[in-house]
Amino acid sequence: MEWFVEEYDGSGLMISVKKKIAQAEGLQKIELYETERFGKMLVIDGKIQITEFDECFYHEMLVHVPLNSCRKAKRILIIGGGDGGALREVLKHDIEKAILVEIDRNVIELCKKYLGIDSGAFEDPRVEVVIEDGRKFLEHCETFDVIIVDSTDPVGVSDPLFGKDFFELCKEKCKVFCSQSQSPLIQKDYFRKMLANSSVLRNRTVFLATIPTYPMALWSFIIAGDYDFRYVKRNFKKIRGKTKHYNPEIHLSAFMLPEWLKKEVENAY
Amino acid sequence: MEWFVEEYDGSGLMISVKKKIAQAEGLQKIELYETERFGKMLVIDGKIQITEFDECFYHEMLVHVPLNSCRKAKRILIIGGGDGGALREVLKHDIEKAILVEIDRNVIELCKKYLGIDSGAFEDPRVEVVIEDGRKFLEHCETFDVIIVDSTDPVGVSDPLFGKDFFELCKEKCKVFCSQSQSPLIQKDYFRKMLANSSVLRNRTVFLATIPTYPMALWSFIIAGDYDFRYVKRNFKKIRGKTKHYNPEIHLSAFMLPEWLKKEVENAY
Repeated sequence: MEWFVEEYDGSGLMISVKKKIAQAEGLQKIELYETERFGKMLVIDGKIQITEFDECFYHEMLVHVPLNSCRKAKRILIIGGGDGGALREVLKHDIEKAILVEIDRNVIELCKKYLGIDSGAFEDPRVEVVIEDGRKFLEHCETFDVIIVDSTDPVGVSDPLFGKDFFELCKEKCKVFCSQSQSPLIQKDYFRKMLANSSVLRNRTVFLATIPTYPMALWSFIIAGDYDFRYVKRNFKKIRGKTKHYNPEIHLSAFMLPEWLKKEVENAY
Repeated sequence: MEWFVEEYDGSGLMISVKKKIAQAEGLQKIELYETERFGKMLVIDGKIQITEFDECFYHEMLVHVPLNSCRKAKRILIIGGGDGGALREVLKHDIEKAILVEIDRNVIELCKKYLGIDSGAFEDPRVEVVIEDGRKFLEHCETFDVIIVDSTDPVGVSDPLFGKDFFELCKEKCKVFCSQSQSPLIQKDYFRKMLANSSVLRNRTVFLATIPTYPMALWSFIIAGDYDFRYVKRNFKKIRGKTKHYNPEIHLSAFMLPEWLKKEVENAY
């Protein structure tokens, strides 16, 4: 049995792999594996991005929480997310346009060919794909109802997506903003930096999800905008039955923070 | 750097350890480690039971959810829990008597001496310790307001704590019952067996917690009895400020199940 190992600081996750399916090296080192128990697995620069086993936990929370919080979410921007999982979830809503801005063409090409979690989303007529730095795209783009940031860790190509000027731009360009914001348990530096830098956003709030194959499994998201995110809009039923993890109760519970994190978030305001 | 490795089915968790502090072999193989990042760690029969880093996530949910759901929780029975963590949490409530029944004396002795998470709970005058098989103890004991089962996996010495006859006994002996019930994600056989066997209990319900150092981190608990567990009793404030993880919101959110688990639990009824 062969193990893929991702080390964090003082801990690590091992995933048993059958074989490597594909690999590409350009802007980032991209690897795709067939695992023993968790389906196919996408690894970028040595870090697990997705397994078929729990990608729905991540993508459904990243997408349905902001889209179900926003009235009339018609124009959606996804920054990153080249695997197509977030795009697939966005298309479950009654939207008009979804633009996906991915800096690394290889991610889209390998995932479309070998991972297949996009379920054909890239071929949908409402979808437009732009290969560009998300930060730069924001400087010249139109406005959106919702911006979703589906990035890798805040190093390398993703670093510009965590700076204060990025959040300033997002504030001008959307009604609702949502981004993954790392592990609040063992990546406190990243998390705190994001809390501090995103303070320019209106009504910024943190929500949580358990993503078993992410470092220490407890994952945070930052959401901001002009809505009460704890309110699930009436058209929830439109996506009901099509989600594996998300439902109205999970939407609400995601905003209920444990004591240690509540203090951390309150202190950051 | 030395790694302690716990393998599950197709995955595994690695924890970087500085040294082994103590070890005992009797009914079970007990090991205590000093880790790099997670404080001290208790391992029984090769499985991580507790790290100082996240033991409060587990113990606070196991104890405060049932005790805060039960009106006048005065007499408490803990089955297992020889590390003293659950006992420590129980003593934060206004109780009269707590009996801890642990089958393996070595767990208590090693944990008291080297782990120290009991915070002196074993010396509290309200506490009585019984070294006995929990299943057998139930055959001759008085009744309790709350029974808490803080066991290892349902194999070896803990196996009797997962059978139908055990739940039948518990039903007669308490107003509220609460037990850890393994990973609903990757220990489905254990979880389903517990759901089936515990169906004899009144008003049986499942709640969740994220315990980062447990297999796949998403952990389940079974609670049962004559109360609405989603209701947090008015005297909540009595323990407030003394918990690191648990709070009224986390109590409520723990009962909000993701779609895939909701179906699983509903089908088991």
